[in-house]
Amino acid sequence: MEHVEYQTVHSGKTPVEWAIRKGQFKEGLSAGVEVVEIQSGDFSFHVFPTRGMGVWQAKLGEKRIGWDSPVRNPVHPAFVNAKSRNGLGWLDGFNELMCRCGLSFNGPPGQDEKMASSIESDLTLHGKVANIPAHSVKFIADENGEIGVSGIVDETTLFGPQLQLTSRITMKLGEKSFTIRDQITNLGSASTELEILYHTNFGSPILEEGAKLTIPASQVVPNSPRSAEDVQEYRTYLAPTQGYTEQVYFMEPLADANGNSVALLESRSGDYGVSLEFKKEQLPCFSQWKCTQALQDGYVTGFEPGTNFPNFKSFERAQGRVIDLQPGATYDVELTLAVHPNSKEVTSVRDRIAKIQGDSTPEICPQPVSPYSSIR
Amino acid sequence: MEHVEYQTVHSGKTPVEWAIRKGQFKEGLSAGVEVVEIQSGDFSFHVFPTRGMGVWQAKLGEKRIGWDSPVRNPVHPAFVNAKSRNGLGWLDGFNELMCRCGLSFNGPPGQDEKMASSIESDLTLHGKVANIPAHSVKFIADENGEIGVSGIVDETTLFGPQLQLTSRITMKLGEKSFTIRDQITNLGSASTELEILYHTNFGSPILEEGAKLTIPASQVVPNSPRSAEDVQEYRTYLAPTQGYTEQVYFMEPLADANGNSVALLESRSGDYGVSLEFKKEQLPCFSQWKCTQALQDGYVTGFEPGTNFPNFKSFERAQGRVIDLQPGATYDVELTLAVHPNSKEVTSVRDRIAKIQGDSTPEICPQPVSPYSSIR
Amino acid sequence: MEHVEYQTVHSGKTPVEWAIRKGQFKEGLSAGVEVVEIQSGDFSFHVFPTRGMGVWQAKLGEKRIGWDSPVRNPVHPAFVNAKSRNGLGWLDGFNELMCRCGLSFNGPPGQDEKMASSIESDLTLHGKVANIPAHSVKFIADENGEIGVSGIVDETTLFGPQLQLTSRITMKLGEKSFTIRDQITNLGSASTELEILYHTNFGSPILEEGAKLTIPASQVVPNSPRSAEDVQEYRTYLAPTQGYTEQVYFMEPLADANGNSVALLESRSGDYGVSLEFKKEQLPCFSQWKCTQALQDGYVTGFEPGTNFPNFKSFERAQGRVIDLQPGATYDVELTLAVHPNSKEVTSVRDRIAKIQGDSTPEICPQPVSPYSSIR
Repeated sequence: MEHVEYQTVHSGKTPVEWAIRKGQFKEGLSAGVEVVEIQSGDFSFHVFPTRGMGVWQAKLGEKRIGWDSPVRNPVHPAFVNAKSRNGLGWLDGFNELMCRCGLSFNGPPGQDEKMASSIESDLTLHGKVANIPAHSVKFIADENGEIGVSGIVDETTLFGPQLQLTSRITMKLGEKSFTIRDQITNLGSASTELEILYHTNFGSPILEEGAKLTIPASQVVPNSPRSAEDVQEYRTYLAPTQGYTEQVYFMEPLADANGNSVALLESRSGDYGVSLEFKKEQLPCFSQWKCTQALQDGYVTGFEPGTNFPNFKSFERAQGRVIDLQPGATYDVELTLAVHPNSKEVTSVRDRIAKIQGDSTPEICPQPVSPYSSIR
Repeated sequence: MEHVEYQTVHSGKTPVEWAIRKGQFKEGLSAGVEVVEIQSGDFSFHVFPTRGMGVWQAKLGEKRIGWDSPVRNPVHPAFVNAKSRNGLGWLDGFNELMCRCGLSFNGPPGQDEKMASSIESDLTLHGKVANIPAHSVKFIADENGEIGVSGIVDETTLFGPQLQLTSRITMKLGEKSFTIRDQITNLGSASTELEILYHTNFGSPILEEGAKLTIPASQVVPNSPRSAEDVQEYRTYLAPTQGYTEQVYFMEPLADANGNSVALLESRSGDYGVSLEFKKEQLPCFSQWKCTQALQDGYVTGFEPGTNFPNFKSFERAQGRVIDLQPGATYDVELTLAVHPNSKEVTSVRDRIAKIQGDSTPEICPQPVSPYSSIR
Repeated sequence: MEHVEYQTVHSGKTPVEWAIRKGQFKEGLSAGVEVVEIQSGDFSFHVFPTRGMGVWQAKLGEKRIGWDSPVRNPVHPAFVNAKSRNGLGWLDGFNELMCRCGLSFNGPPGQDEKMASSIESDLTLHGKVANIPAHSVKFIADENGEIGVSGIVDETTLFGPQLQLTSRITMKLGEKSFTIRDQITNLGSASTELEILYHTNFGSPILEEGAKLTIPASQVVPNSPRSAEDVQEYRTYLAPTQGYTEQVYFMEPLADANGNSVALLESRSGDYGVSLEFKKEQLPCFSQWKCTQALQDGYVTGFEPGTNFPNFKSFERAQGRVIDLQPGATYDVELTLAVHPNSKEVTSVRDRIAKIQGDSTPEICPQPVSPYSSIR
């Protein structure tokens, strides 16, 4: 794959050398994909305005936070046919560190018979938003030392949902984290349904045999009999395993006094970690995707805080987990991804999670159960 | 949405200041959409070569002729998947003042079991032509004071229809109208079916409570029980109405001695209007689309002269309203959209329509009836 | 259609004037399609990196090797919806001299019920590879007098096939032929299925009434009752024939001591020909597509050496003609298209084929038979 030529749009030297750069891929399935690099010191992350304001990867020094999907390069949405592969065509473009599943629906494909309109009942895997290019892209470099990028993604149609995402993704100069601030607004005159899930994906090198998830939770439920097989070991990860079949655990996260919850992935030795902090009220459902298959097939785990679990939409609706967004109303989401490059920082996050968990222990369901899992 | 940078390709100062400008959208779902602005004095209109030579909007002074679709910006055809939304994906790109529905088929999606070939039986809403980019785009500025743009749209495939649209859209310098001259040619060796409908859409400010359609007609037929509810008031429009469900009336237009028919939309006070003139022989079926829903959902009415009514193609075929275009034959269509910015001009058009109507009165069917409506 | 502006990237004068030029189409359905012209003396050919490294056409002097599809211009993959036209949407982009059908599947559309995963069971006509843009495109001009272009096409997804095509298409300076060297690699950790067929298409002027196929073969089998009608005349071609329905013959080619087989299309008088040489071990199935319909509908014959016959994949699998490509394994294909512009050269190829055929005669099956044909 060609090198992308970046052009610096903003830069500075204090308190660290920083820059905002933009580039565009020119070849193959990536042709036309625009990328924005936000860099401060030795930390950086890349945003894809063309792919619904998804985050391609982050980097701290030489270490990349992200994963190696079999989809090797960024894919322009014009090449993603959501209807292909029996409604699973979304997978043909899936390789980001973070992409959104939504806005009108996420989860598996199918006909959502509950919808009055056939405009809204034709569901494809994980929805449309990740394959809608953003407009009104703006670069942010303010006097408070915050740098980043914002953009607007319209998921609207006639006689259907009118959901507009305004996403602002920024970092503080000198930090090793970035924060996504999303506002999803119903522009229509009637209420409309909203599902949003942040599919946040980590592979090597942090993910490795013995790597571990820590998250404060009250419930852990396997989504399927296959996932139930290893539910007691949900926190720990296998080495890349040829023939491994994915496992998913649904969780009820716990939050601190400010309503914040945080999930940590740490390396086996605990000397490196990455955390995802989110607000429980905004994203009450946490799904852990274990996909420790062979490296070349996509060795990855997903941390997926969402408004819902990624079951078929009609099941989620029946459980009361589909948001009915009122006309003109906005749903806010804020989440922060941070890198913790040493034992001390990893321990600090782990301690923070332990405090949130407190004396309670998560209830681990041995089998898929209602109202979490649709597969029994 | 970004501003499009236009580049002037032709211009002059007599008899009024005029110019032809071209531009290209750069962002979001609009990235790559080319637009041509034709301007003479304070009247202008915009053509989308990239969207099958559709007309985005017209302007007279500050007043825009067009509508505010929930699809906020022009959509590049690469982002319109006609197969999505159960065959209604066409709606994801629908926001023009005038777009064509055709060429091989229009109307609702479904399997047209009468077609021998599965290549031709997979119908999606309103056909392909509006999402096929034109080639051979040429700018027109001739010695007779006619300015505009032409382009060629190929709706062809192997083992299927070979319909080629050559569209020329021009205005006379100093006028407040433009004329579409379309030639649709069957390039194949066998006859092929043709359906073409000009979906011409008006919203605020001309459309308002009490705005009125005037058209010379012999028959007015509701397309559905819902439309039948208010058939007696088909001519007048409601204010933006939250929860309004669309109503469609099929009409047999009358024509003057030259074969011309004309439909007028005028504001409540009658001091502003827009008219659509067409040839009855070319476009014998007129559909009025009333969609006076809330402003933010797309407050709009469509004037839709066509070779057929927008029923499912097999129904139209059974009524003899699908054209069998012979090999090498060309179907010509000419229609003119004019703006009438004062009572005098509006009255003049209304008087002209009254003359065409003469002593007759339109027969208003209280219910959907054959051979017009497929829903009973 | 606009002229493409080419830019010379390499050129020289010995032993003949030669050049490698690249260009990009700007308009209509072709907008964004990149084309590479390889020219040596009065022979040239054009490759489409954007269309999966297909070969648009070759030229010797004024004579074009290729065909006139009703799809008049190159089509950018973003405008080809494989799911449209009941899974036959591939036809909307089909007009090359040579395009690949594969890599995961080719043949007619349908649900391949044998596949465990719905990601892999949704088959559309002739697969994905022809509509995937190549990356890592490189121009070749080496010291041995070989010029051409190479590129990499990724047909990969998560939880599905990971097939990567590396294609190198070159010619020797001064020759009138080009050679395709393809390497198809399974990048996944498990074996995956592979079907690849080289759809090589010739129309006027070489194809004409009385034009003739010569190929060394042991078996000739019609694919359908329609094809069986004229199986005895499989070698000779009709003039353009309005209303002609395509006929396909499946053949078992014979090879020389080096494993090479060659198919020749010669003009009626035998003073002009084009040949396709391939390795029987790599491409053991040869399909002849006779489509001598009216010129304007696409008067064409296809020579289609493949790993399989273009029946529905599950049928081919049952006959053992679907390759199970092991993890990390590469499937190599080499084939050469050569132009023979005089009787002497045509005779030479014909003689060579006769030698391969030797004393044997092809067995011509009067009817579709197993294990060749799926239609009985």
